[in-house]
Amino acid sequence: MPKISNKGINMPESPIRKLVPFAEEANKRGKKVYYLNIGQPDIKTPTLALDAVKIHSLEILAYSRSEGSEEYRKKIAKYYKNNAIEVTHNDIIVTTGGSEALLFAFGSIMDEGDEIIIPEPFYANYNGFSTASSINVVPVISKIENNFALPPIEEFEKLITPKTKAILICNPGNPTGYMYSKEEIKKLASIVKKHDLFLIADEVYREFVYDGDPHYSILQEPGLEAHGIVIDSVSKRYSMCGARIGYLVSKNKDVITTALKFAQARLSPPTLAQIAAEAALDTPKSYFDEVRQEYMKRRDVLIEGLEKIPGVKVAKPNGAFYCIAELPIKNSDDFARWLLESFDYENSTVMVAPAAGFYSTSGVGKNQIRIAYVLNEESLRVAIKVLAEALKVYKD
Amino acid sequence: MPKISNKGINMPESPIRKLVPFAEEANKRGKKVYYLNIGQPDIKTPTLALDAVKIHSLEILAYSRSEGSEEYRKKIAKYYKNNAIEVTHNDIIVTTGGSEALLFAFGSIMDEGDEIIIPEPFYANYNGFSTASSINVVPVISKIENNFALPPIEEFEKLITPKTKAILICNPGNPTGYMYSKEEIKKLASIVKKHDLFLIADEVYREFVYDGDPHYSILQEPGLEAHGIVIDSVSKRYSMCGARIGYLVSKNKDVITTALKFAQARLSPPTLAQIAAEAALDTPKSYFDEVRQEYMKRRDVLIEGLEKIPGVKVAKPNGAFYCIAELPIKNSDDFARWLLESFDYENSTVMVAPAAGFYSTSGVGKNQIRIAYVLNEESLRVAIKVLAEALKVYKD
Repeated sequence: MPKISNKGINMPESPIRKLVPFAEEANKRGKKVYYLNIGQPDIKTPTLALDAVKIHSLEILAYSRSEGSEEYRKKIAKYYKNNAIEVTHNDIIVTTGGSEALLFAFGSIMDEGDEIIIPEPFYANYNGFSTASSINVVPVISKIENNFALPPIEEFEKLITPKTKAILICNPGNPTGYMYSKEEIKKLASIVKKHDLFLIADEVYREFVYDGDPHYSILQEPGLEAHGIVIDSVSKRYSMCGARIGYLVSKNKDVITTALKFAQARLSPPTLAQIAAEAALDTPKSYFDEVRQEYMKRRDVLIEGLEKIPGVKVAKPNGAFYCIAELPIKNSDDFARWLLESFDYENSTVMVAPAAGFYSTSGVGKNQIRIAYVLNEESLRVAIKVLAEALKVYKD
Repeated sequence: MPKISNKGINMPESPIRKLVPFAEEANKRGKKVYYLNIGQPDIKTPTLALDAVKIHSLEILAYSRSEGSEEYRKKIAKYYKNNAIEVTHNDIIVTTGGSEALLFAFGSIMDEGDEIIIPEPFYANYNGFSTASSINVVPVISKIENNFALPPIEEFEKLITPKTKAILICNPGNPTGYMYSKEEIKKLASIVKKHDLFLIADEVYREFVYDGDPHYSILQEPGLEAHGIVIDSVSKRYSMCGARIGYLVSKNKDVITTALKFAQARLSPPTLAQIAAEAALDTPKSYFDEVRQEYMKRRDVLIEGLEKIPGVKVAKPNGAFYCIAELPIKNSDDFARWLLESFDYENSTVMVAPAAGFYSTSGVGKNQIRIAYVLNEESLRVAIKVLAEALKVYKD
């Protein structure tokens, strides 16, 4: 019998998705499951985006340009301009979600065995994309005690080797909810310039910023033109995760030219989704204001609720819609599964993402979970209650 | 300045797409361009597929399951059953086009430096996906004189090394239009069983089969369950290339489990496109009968027309909608560009795909082009005339 590759064996299971069958089983048995595990917001997609697909007059659902149509990319460039980011449509490649933008970036700048430094905990699928691209993640640890702020520059420099090609940040952060300040971005800029590295910034949560601090993009930092690669996506911005439309943005022409070759091999990003995503660019500011208010309210309810549970420690997020919570347990993998299989409170339970999968360092994060506050306030209050009751009885 | 990866440098340019800017330039100058370069059919997408997207009542464009919804996969399994192929929904992963299915297959079964044997000429993007996956294509030459039939078994066996993990075929073939017979599939089955290899079959053109021979899928071959991986796609079948929906199908559970990890890392295939593609499964048989008739007519017009041009040699395709034509020229890259930049016949020109990019062996195919007969009969006749006139005056 022919064998699976080592790469295939080493591909990590998604900590966000691997419990789905247990949740479905719980559902089938009539249990109400509150999903705190996945960044699938309950916020409605702007109707203008959904309507754009309903009124199309296509007779043939054809390929688009590999990099996305010029018209669409020009509108995207305008979106960036409105966010005080100066790029042209030639700096943009439309991708199948932020996921594909990351794969194109990894392929364009790294070979097998090359290293990328990522502050951990980080978005779990960075592990998957790194394995798929045969590159090595070198984690630099950020701590719940510091709200997951940027680790000191020296910690990065200690890890740089001849194999290091890039630093990757997610800003604001999934799963930490931490938003890097302008000063922290400037520190990162100084390292990548000094060591001739790329700086990849996953900025898909740009709009989800609370507490009044403005988001500072790496594309706004002067002198970073050759180094900066932004990963972007419409998934969270317009609550259209299922569109699978993202962008790779860079002012480094070599990066764009190279990423385009990867883009051409797969022909084109999805056409219907581009119609919806292009229309979504006309979403009025009021939509984002409302969404931001809603998430701030949820965040406050969540953090306040979690802090009241004995033994729970939590970092207060100021962006995105996730938080990492440390629980008075030993193994959150077991706990998350137990919640679905063996526990209910008034016939309800919660699904959470065990945090170990968001770390690359083995053994770290085992007593942590990631919570996505993508449920409305009422559901969130019930979910917190369920979690509190669960922790009262759970033994590991 | 940080540097592009070797992988990025080695990524081939798409022979199908690289001339697009020249075609756009020609268009801008008012020249009428007949596109014979890309497999983007002019056939209308079934209206039931396009309508399904218009009448949806989604409020949130959410992620789907990473492997595609159970309901959709059950319908796909039924489609296969109707084609005398016995698979269940658990043998199917829905992917973002056949492209992604190939990437998942490559990642699941091959590590860096592993080898895959492919009869050449082959679909050009196999080169791109191989480079992206850090694996090596080992070509086995099929010849225009033999209509690009399967090379003798001994030719394959000569190329097998400890690094060989799979044989990849496209059946019916892009760019050759050749459909392998049941006997040829059985020969391939015997090699992969003998040497413990995977057999990947890109069967996206399954429905496009002429001259009465039935298509024989590798999934129909007994004893190949552990070896067979089928790449499939709705792109050509329902003329919905822009949907970006494909499938990876295998009865090897390890392959499916592993490919699912790659699928989970990128979250989900596009949701809107899945709605359209699921509806497309209800397309009546009459649609395919009409489309097949149309392509047969076009093929006959094309082959007859090409055979009349002095110095042109062509293999008669019995499937798909491509053919390879050998021209009385030295370099089809230069010729294809010249057609767009410097030639017109009554203000018209044609865009063709230079065939060298469909070969992995350097220097082969330089006097060949690939023609996609995706234009209606009338346009095809004009395009052939333009090509004939061009060859009268071209000098290289």
